[in-house]
Amino acid sequence: MTEIRKNLPVDEQLAVLKRGVVDLVSEDDLRRKLEDSLETGQPLRVKLGADPTRPDLHLGHAVILRKMRQFQDLGHKVIMLIGDFTATIGDPSGKSKTRPPLSIEEARANAQSYLEQCRLILRSEPEVLEIRSNGEWLEEMGYKDIIALTAKYTVARILERDDFSKRLREGTPISMHELLYPLTQGYDSVALKADVELGGTDQLFNNLVGRALQRDYGQEPQVVMTLPLLVGLDGTEKMSKSLDNYIGVSDEPHAIFAGLMKVPDTLLENYFTLLTDLPQDRISEVLAGHPVEAHRQLAREVLGWLAPGSDPDAAEERFRSVAKGGIPDDLPEVTVAADELNDEGNVSMARLVVLAGLEPSNGAARKLIQNRGLKVAGEPYTDAQGWVTQAELGTEGGFVVQKGKDKFVRLILD
Amino acid sequence: MTEIRKNLPVDEQLAVLKRGVVDLVSEDDLRRKLEDSLETGQPLRVKLGADPTRPDLHLGHAVILRKMRQFQDLGHKVIMLIGDFTATIGDPSGKSKTRPPLSIEEARANAQSYLEQCRLILRSEPEVLEIRSNGEWLEEMGYKDIIALTAKYTVARILERDDFSKRLREGTPISMHELLYPLTQGYDSVALKADVELGGTDQLFNNLVGRALQRDYGQEPQVVMTLPLLVGLDGTEKMSKSLDNYIGVSDEPHAIFAGLMKVPDTLLENYFTLLTDLPQDRISEVLAGHPVEAHRQLAREVLGWLAPGSDPDAAEERFRSVAKGGIPDDLPEVTVAADELNDEGNVSMARLVVLAGLEPSNGAARKLIQNRGLKVAGEPYTDAQGWVTQAELGTEGGFVVQKGKDKFVRLILD
Repeated sequence: MTEIRKNLPVDEQLAVLKRGVVDLVSEDDLRRKLEDSLETGQPLRVKLGADPTRPDLHLGHAVILRKMRQFQDLGHKVIMLIGDFTATIGDPSGKSKTRPPLSIEEARANAQSYLEQCRLILRSEPEVLEIRSNGEWLEEMGYKDIIALTAKYTVARILERDDFSKRLREGTPISMHELLYPLTQGYDSVALKADVELGGTDQLFNNLVGRALQRDYGQEPQVVMTLPLLVGLDGTEKMSKSLDNYIGVSDEPHAIFAGLMKVPDTLLENYFTLLTDLPQDRISEVLAGHPVEAHRQLAREVLGWLAPGSDPDAAEERFRSVAKGGIPDDLPEVTVAADELNDEGNVSMARLVVLAGLEPSNGAARKLIQNRGLKVAGEPYTDAQGWVTQAELGTEGGFVVQKGKDKFVRLILD
Repeated sequence: MTEIRKNLPVDEQLAVLKRGVVDLVSEDDLRRKLEDSLETGQPLRVKLGADPTRPDLHLGHAVILRKMRQFQDLGHKVIMLIGDFTATIGDPSGKSKTRPPLSIEEARANAQSYLEQCRLILRSEPEVLEIRSNGEWLEEMGYKDIIALTAKYTVARILERDDFSKRLREGTPISMHELLYPLTQGYDSVALKADVELGGTDQLFNNLVGRALQRDYGQEPQVVMTLPLLVGLDGTEKMSKSLDNYIGVSDEPHAIFAGLMKVPDTLLENYFTLLTDLPQDRISEVLAGHPVEAHRQLAREVLGWLAPGSDPDAAEERFRSVAKGGIPDDLPEVTVAADELNDEGNVSMARLVVLAGLEPSNGAARKLIQNRGLKVAGEPYTDAQGWVTQAELGTEGGFVVQKGKDKFVRLILD
């Protein structure tokens, strides 16, 4: 891990921090805060809100976490604010499927997993990492406090948020509590005395609410910095787990390698800017060369910081072998007992998937097959009612089934 | 005091209750609730919200309180809900002058005075009167409860309220907390399990929020009943203390009499309907006669229930004497010590007003005079720097000063 380099000149800090940034409200404020920090020796407090209802991090999240890391590397303190209290509330109107209420145990477990993934990118030294929960202040808040908070903001300003004004225009219902969330989120910045808040471009409005509220509560308003939403491997939608166009931050090194080799050429420059430290002129050089070489370079750069202990040559080797439809060497093996075969000497493919531990039940296995999630010998296997013969199972080297991109199991008949 | 007449047939109850009502949402619901009450013997719970920031009641308030009283006379239970908790919050945005925050002591003292005036109209038997404070549940409410409450109502529905949509259209700021008040007020009905809520026509929207929320909380929705805002003695504006077009419910009987004699002819029918129990055909008869007679009848009817112990003849007699510029007999007397006179044998009018106990200081006395609030011998006395001579003070029968309509003091030189 590199050294923390405190007290760099403000211009040098700004050059690092501005890379890849979309909105910066405002650069003057950030410069002044950096100057003050340099003078007083007090690091900036840089906030990021984390939603523990969606604990799986991918490279889209990594874009923002890398910016947090840059603040850390410059000696500033990042604050991971876990929204575990709000997660236990969920969406009481029951309208949003993405906000089911969690038990406090679930929320904490999710937060734990979220933070473990963050540590792949962030520094852990306590002087540059603070972990907080919004329950610390929201749990204490009473009716009076909420009236006082909401008195500081007008309806018109809240309704300026793009999605609200759109829904209001279209007559799509907005529940009253949805208007409270941006205010609560803004109040988090007041409670934390944040100097800077980071977020995706979709968080610009919410984070500006925090900036306005801090002023109303007599604090210096925070700087709001947004980063682009990373476009996923499909080349069109933002990276997200549900669209399956993502690379997970805790994926195996060869899977990360494989994913980055699939980045559409048009996105290469974007990925280099947001996910590597290569200077702009080096990026231009790389992009001028052969695209496959550029992809390899991208993959190696990302592995360099995301999986610093991994061997990039091994990851590349394994990626190549899988890409050719080859089967990696180090597969888990599962023995199939002879009595699994029926009187004709066959066993259903669904049953084999269960025996391989790839799905918990025959039903789930059939669903996997229907959804083209199962491969045999590199080809999709699509017959959910299919059977495998004793001869197929008994082949020298076993019968290898593959789920998704990268889960292989070798079945061996006993 | 008349007897409580429980268990009257539903149609008879409805006939009484519907008199003078503007909105009734819905009559079917009210009928069904009355039927259920008759069947089970359970009285209806009839809610009225009271704002302890404005504790002075006038006949405009009496219109609604009389409706409450009718429910009581039919055996139903009225609930006076004192908004003392919200009064202590006031308007934290500081924009509304009519909602300054009160200390809890002020709020309680106001509520006490408010309730004493209500008792001039309402029955006090505990089976038909319940007094509650919204602090009982609002004080307990946390962030989670407020999110749950606000999740039940959409922004569009709140913004339908006339004044909100108007302000939003005109660009006049609405603070977010203002949107919370109707929801809180509606939640009061949930907490109280109200069957009926009364209010002025200006409360229709807020009280319908309560009706909607009760449904969302799994309760029978309350019936919302509104009564007209009584037009004041000026014949145009709604009765209000600040417009000085009012008759206070605890005014002296002769002042009430005097006020009602001044009701514009065009409002007589309205006042008869809302402030007396005279049947409609009797009202028509009275209105067909001489207007002065109609006024007298109105005044006597109102005194009958508002000041049942008073002598209407005496009130009328005194009203007549004051109206003619005459001075009533039973005046408080104050002796003026001889050393109050200066070397020329005069005393300032301001000083006399203080000695009479009509104002606390010479400054306040001069202000009263400037505002034409002082009369001598029936005529306004307007010279704030004026002097009264020993001769004037020494007149047989003393020197009578009059503040406002009806406060007389006889000054006698020692």
